[in-house]
Amino acid sequence: MYGGLIVSIIDCHGIGTAAAATYRAEGREMDTQPALRFVTASLHVEYIRPTPMGTALEVRGKVKEIKGRKVVVSATLSADGMICAKGEVVAVQMPEHMMPRSGEALTSP
Amino acid sequence: MYGGLIVSIIDCHGIGTAAAATYRAEGREMDTQPALRFVTASLHVEYIRPTPMGTALEVRGKVKEIKGRKVVVSATLSADGMICAKGEVVAVQMPEHMMPRSGEALTSP
Repeated sequence: MYGGLIVSIIDCHGIGTAAAATYRAEGREMDTQPALRFVTASLHVEYIRPTPMGTALEVRGKVKEIKGRKVVVSATLSADGMICAKGEVVAVQMPEHMMPRSGEALTSP
Repeated sequence: MYGGLIVSIIDCHGIGTAAAATYRAEGREMDTQPALRFVTASLHVEYIRPTPMGTALEVRGKVKEIKGRKVVVSATLSADGMICAKGEVVAVQMPEHMMPRSGEALTSP
């Protein structure tokens, strides 16, 4: 599988994990207002072995650190129980002025 | 612009730069045989500011190190003269058994 797609999956999962962890840290239900949105500050991926196509892929994110508006998430992408890529995503809570207005579509970072 | 696309562009440009630098280091013309093909070993990207759509983007790669089969390339992605993202790609020359046979399409890593 193309490395750019692998890193996109890890990015997406890292951002989602960061948001979920922050809702939980604040003792809030998911999707309660005000919404928490994150953008990627940095992204690191190591390709361990080629990622096959045509099989289910499993992505697991683990919160390493929540520090103010910043969340660090490590992630693995596996196929058939073998880790194909490892990554780390530094996610930052989106500044208010970048937030979409209600009803407006959110475009990813 | 979506961060996954930004990192894909940096990955692609890093791999191309690694191959070009290795042809030059070996005193060879581009695309002479045997072909040099690289895969991504690791990838790091920092997002400096949002990357706008609808304007030309400039990607510049710089070879930091060539060490055996490994080439380290740093890259910047700019829009309107402003750096939006910086990255580093560690590219490794593809092992022989992963090389496509003559006439076969090469799929990216």
